[in-house]
Amino acid sequence: MPFTYNRTIRFQDTDAAGVVYFANVLAICHEAYEESLNVSNINLQLFFRNNDFAIPIVHASVDFLRPMFCGDRILINLSTNQLNLQKFEINYQILTPEKEIISKAITKHICIDLNTRTRKELPSEIIHWLHKTDSL
Amino acid sequence: MPFTYNRTIRFQDTDAAGVVYFANVLAICHEAYEESLNVSNINLQLFFRNNDFAIPIVHASVDFLRPMFCGDRILINLSTNQLNLQKFEINYQILTPEKEIISKAITKHICIDLNTRTRKELPSEIIHWLHKTDSL
Amino acid sequence: MPFTYNRTIRFQDTDAAGVVYFANVLAICHEAYEESLNVSNINLQLFFRNNDFAIPIVHASVDFLRPMFCGDRILINLSTNQLNLQKFEINYQILTPEKEIISKAITKHICIDLNTRTRKELPSEIIHWLHKTDSL
Amino acid sequence: MPFTYNRTIRFQDTDAAGVVYFANVLAICHEAYEESLNVSNINLQLFFRNNDFAIPIVHASVDFLRPMFCGDRILINLSTNQLNLQKFEINYQILTPEKEIISKAITKHICIDLNTRTRKELPSEIIHWLHKTDSL
Repeated sequence: MPFTYNRTIRFQDTDAAGVVYFANVLAICHEAYEESLNVSNINLQLFFRNNDFAIPIVHASVDFLRPMFCGDRILINLSTNQLNLQKFEINYQILTPEKEIISKAITKHICIDLNTRTRKELPSEIIHWLHKTDSL
Repeated sequence: MPFTYNRTIRFQDTDAAGVVYFANVLAICHEAYEESLNVSNINLQLFFRNNDFAIPIVHASVDFLRPMFCGDRILINLSTNQLNLQKFEINYQILTPEKEIISKAITKHICIDLNTRTRKELPSEIIHWLHKTDSL
Repeated sequence: MPFTYNRTIRFQDTDAAGVVYFANVLAICHEAYEESLNVSNINLQLFFRNNDFAIPIVHASVDFLRPMFCGDRILINLSTNQLNLQKFEINYQILTPEKEIISKAITKHICIDLNTRTRKELPSEIIHWLHKTDSL
Repeated sequence: MPFTYNRTIRFQDTDAAGVVYFANVLAICHEAYEESLNVSNINLQLFFRNNDFAIPIVHASVDFLRPMFCGDRILINLSTNQLNLQKFEINYQILTPEKEIISKAITKHICIDLNTRTRKELPSEIIHWLHKTDSL
């Protein structure tokens, strides 16, 4: 089931063109990912600064359909697909409160062993989270 | 009366030392300022991208008492002092949910005419907001 | 001919995982784009804050092959393709000083009329820049 | 002797008001600090992500005299004062190429033992760097 994250566009998100700076849209998507993990009781401090494993992003893409301005209220719908034992992707839809699509994005994540820098199976808490937020 | 803003520390706020990057603490304070204006029905898009006047920050200072980590829940208490007809300051206290002080900051703001680049009286909606959030 | 931009990874680029935050890689690519425009004598202040036209990014994608750490020296090779009269794409390769590929990215840009919000032909100075940095 | 760092204002540094976002001025000062350490042969990756000690910023202040726009070339003059065995401050002057002052900032840094979270003497490589960049 998709997870929905509410966000207000901040002055810092914008650039001199008066709208959200393109790369910040991906950062806003990542916030939705963090909040989704948090709601699933995953400790973010340990998750993102672990000595054993890491789940870096290996690919990201984003389409921009409408500009976002400071003060705008937006929703991010996040849903996941587990691709194999070590890999998953997240799909994001950014919407206005009236449900018009502003932007779409995808991030792909691979679990690695930080000592050997080789692929490693996703930890069980992530498998659990992937089931909860599955796009199916 | 002080305004309180709730915030979660995001991965993007942190740096390779594992804690919030120092300058981002001021950005988090600015978010509290924006939300406080928003609650006072000030249109942020018009406010920050006006053709007539601007209210730039002319001074900022911040003290760091404790580190903040990804996922931490924090509160920001914001209160204001009008210094004269063209100038005000904002005081910020960043607190843990248990009310321990993490950081303190101040920003000073001056209203200017964008055409002449000279000082100008603060607009009435800002005077109204300053009364609401006055530290006294 | 591709344009090459030299960059050092800064502390602010990193996150609590100790490496460059994923979305900041696209921001670093955008810096290369800005410097390439600047070398082509395009005034960046006017270019990015024009009242007549804008050339927003409509798509971005990025692949991450190796992590980047604070202090790392990198090169960004930028080359362009004009897609039609209103649209172009930029390809970026991020390399170590030893020419190992760290990351690859693409951004797509469309010229719009800011008054009508419809597509518009690219300005001649951009056509000139596209010829200079063409990937062919 | 002061250290001078050259920087171009990037689109990402700006906000919807069309000028550099206030907190980013401190980030630009920190870049000058990093480059100054780097020139003094201090390994930034080890320095900022050490297991034994850290030198966090405990105070920062900044005054804004003139706005900065995308594409502007600036200079940052950095000089240091060692305050005691565990503490130093850095003074920054941001200047136009014509040597007009745009902004002034100060950061204060304390060395701590990461295991005990108590103050610790500054490492010798930092003492060496402080002598080189001393404001006297």
